[in-house]
Amino acid sequence: MIAELVFVGTELLLGEILNTNAQFLSQKLSALGIDCYYQSVVGDNEERLAGVLRQALSRADVVITSGGLGPTMDDLTRETTAVVCGLPLELQPDILAGLQAFFAKRTGKPMPENNVRQAMAPRGSKLLLNDRGTAPGLIVPSPEGKPVILLPGPPNELRPMFEQQVIPELTRRMGGKPLLLVSRVLRFVDIGESTLEDRLKDLIAAQTDPNIAPYAKLGEVHLRLSTKAASEEEGLAKIQPVEQAIRERVGQHVYATGEQDLAAAVGGLLQERGLTVAAAESCSGGLLAKRLTDEAGSSAHFLAGFVTYSNEAKRTLLGVPAELLAQHGAVSEQVAEAMALGALARSGADLAVAITGIAGPGGATPEKPVGTVCFGLAARAAAGGAPLHGGVRPADLLTFSSTQQWWGSRADIRERSATQALALIRRYVLTGKL
Amino acid sequence: MIAELVFVGTELLLGEILNTNAQFLSQKLSALGIDCYYQSVVGDNEERLAGVLRQALSRADVVITSGGLGPTMDDLTRETTAVVCGLPLELQPDILAGLQAFFAKRTGKPMPENNVRQAMAPRGSKLLLNDRGTAPGLIVPSPEGKPVILLPGPPNELRPMFEQQVIPELTRRMGGKPLLLVSRVLRFVDIGESTLEDRLKDLIAAQTDPNIAPYAKLGEVHLRLSTKAASEEEGLAKIQPVEQAIRERVGQHVYATGEQDLAAAVGGLLQERGLTVAAAESCSGGLLAKRLTDEAGSSAHFLAGFVTYSNEAKRTLLGVPAELLAQHGAVSEQVAEAMALGALARSGADLAVAITGIAGPGGATPEKPVGTVCFGLAARAAAGGAPLHGGVRPADLLTFSSTQQWWGSRADIRERSATQALALIRRYVLTGKL
Repeated sequence: MIAELVFVGTELLLGEILNTNAQFLSQKLSALGIDCYYQSVVGDNEERLAGVLRQALSRADVVITSGGLGPTMDDLTRETTAVVCGLPLELQPDILAGLQAFFAKRTGKPMPENNVRQAMAPRGSKLLLNDRGTAPGLIVPSPEGKPVILLPGPPNELRPMFEQQVIPELTRRMGGKPLLLVSRVLRFVDIGESTLEDRLKDLIAAQTDPNIAPYAKLGEVHLRLSTKAASEEEGLAKIQPVEQAIRERVGQHVYATGEQDLAAAVGGLLQERGLTVAAAESCSGGLLAKRLTDEAGSSAHFLAGFVTYSNEAKRTLLGVPAELLAQHGAVSEQVAEAMALGALARSGADLAVAITGIAGPGGATPEKPVGTVCFGLAARAAAGGAPLHGGVRPADLLTFSSTQQWWGSRADIRERSATQALALIRRYVLTGKL
Repeated sequence: MIAELVFVGTELLLGEILNTNAQFLSQKLSALGIDCYYQSVVGDNEERLAGVLRQALSRADVVITSGGLGPTMDDLTRETTAVVCGLPLELQPDILAGLQAFFAKRTGKPMPENNVRQAMAPRGSKLLLNDRGTAPGLIVPSPEGKPVILLPGPPNELRPMFEQQVIPELTRRMGGKPLLLVSRVLRFVDIGESTLEDRLKDLIAAQTDPNIAPYAKLGEVHLRLSTKAASEEEGLAKIQPVEQAIRERVGQHVYATGEQDLAAAVGGLLQERGLTVAAAESCSGGLLAKRLTDEAGSSAHFLAGFVTYSNEAKRTLLGVPAELLAQHGAVSEQVAEAMALGALARSGADLAVAITGIAGPGGATPEKPVGTVCFGLAARAAAGGAPLHGGVRPADLLTFSSTQQWWGSRADIRERSATQALALIRRYVLTGKL
């Protein structure tokens, strides 16, 4: 089955609202195995809306609209659909009685005259009840027997109506046995999009089914494997060997599958190993701590965060030696390591990670351009580890530092830096090495 | 001028990403006075994309696309636009050199073979530089002389490219004299949407031009005043008396106009008064510090942040008395005040704000349901202020505490809490009172 989505409303064309219905309906249709090749947005204009509806009916089996079912004069979807389908509008006494009851209950006043329009429906339509608002949805039969499903615009009305009334209708029309789109997302860190694709080039080129699609995010890459199948199990069984082949090549970079984000995955790892962590941040200003505590239950592994923006805060709160700051500057691997050691000692955590860098746009020097970010890690361990430059490292601590050169906006640099710090924690916890 | 937007990407049709580019581009076009009657979403499919581009060219003066400019095989926008416009693709040595330099500098490795595609452009195209990613944008001339403007999909690349390179191009093509949509956004804090609307009811009812539109955000309300005019000055002159009337009633709640957010406004206030601030956070987990440091230059007024998630961290890092924690619990006004006092003393800041609450979904008790959040403030002052319950307050310090009951998701509760803390800082700095 092929569906086409039509979103109606001048407010969408003006950018006054974000079209979250598009994502919701797209996800639901793809989960049902219904293909969607086109989506359109059109304003509250009868002629243009009619054109879009005719085109959609010419290329899809079912057309779903949202918006334009309200009581005001610029709500035209009901009337325009009737015209396009060649059906007369008829007053529905049941809807009218429902609307009158709704107004009596919610406002204690009689229904405004405007709302009578909401009780009109093209002949032969099936009504979709709306218990969250005044606009009922409609399933209007086109002359070719294709349904045009009209849904209200407000997401809190559209979502339950779709879930409870439209999904059963679509499933019934597909003969009760929809072909599902089954997909699995592999989430990678510590590897770039082009490098990843390069290492999987032959797999991607040979792909037919399952499909392999990469998406880059700030500091991460996601790979979506998808296929159509009669059941979730059947789909996952088709995906499994492809996932296996990918993991054999780049499995160490897969931090999670599905919806879990990097901070949640790292939190899960820490929890699993019984390790606790602390964060010491300069340029990222608390973002790393914020991400480490996004998930409920993070108090089990996240002990403390220090946002030491000034040199003085680095000295007094983390005990970074003044000479280190003077000699190497606040943005240096030496200071990053000392920050991590300070956070480790003061928090009592097993592992501490530090970020100090130049998020910009100011603060750059010729040697340290905007985007220069140094990372430090300190961990409790038996012995060993790289020597700490300039500072004093107790024998039972491991330390590590590195520098990255990021690009992009201040927000991008901060986001990438927090992601990198999470990747470093992950690498340490998994390999036991710094 | 009429524009049409085409969003390219199977990930949009599958609902994997929310189309925020649609709202961004719609807002920008409407601000330029450019009409947009249709928007389409189409997948990574050459035939369907070509059809959509041809239709868009048949009904608009300019077509703007986003997405499909990446290095991978399913990125087809560049090639398909060349076919639709009947132009050969040519290797652009400048782009290639730029890409090679980008990879050498950013990764230290040679450019992957894949990326060569990104150096191809239809003959006669104008290049749009991309300093945030590898995909340059293109302005491709159609045979009818209409430009097809190809932009990258990632919002952090698309936005600056549009602002800095596409807007001047569109303005030039409109002869430099479009009828502008001029608008001004007043940003409110410390007042709810219904209260605000109630106090401005008659103004909103009487509005014709300028238009007054309220938007509620988490813990904030924005009011957009807009009108069309030949120039920015003319539009602002029409808006000015309406803004004046609004400010006379609720001016003390206006924290900024335009794009400036609450953290930036509060940062500006602190800087203006020469005050410094510190943050002590439990449930918000670093989000307040993150927001206080979002803007460049925040090191002038933000001294330090403490993320004390555990009771032990509250004791050892902030000196919260163990008896206070035992007697009142970590989520209490007493502990919030003590956290603020600890942060003040340890950071040397003029003002410290603390947040401790239950962000959920776990951790609730019958007396303290999810969403219970306590705030503490401490400030250096001559004397006075409310008494500190249970703790010890030096005579030269002011302290204050309050409790809020929020609703919504964990993320919402954390966001509202950070907003409230910023509102408390603003209130103190403006009134000198806690």
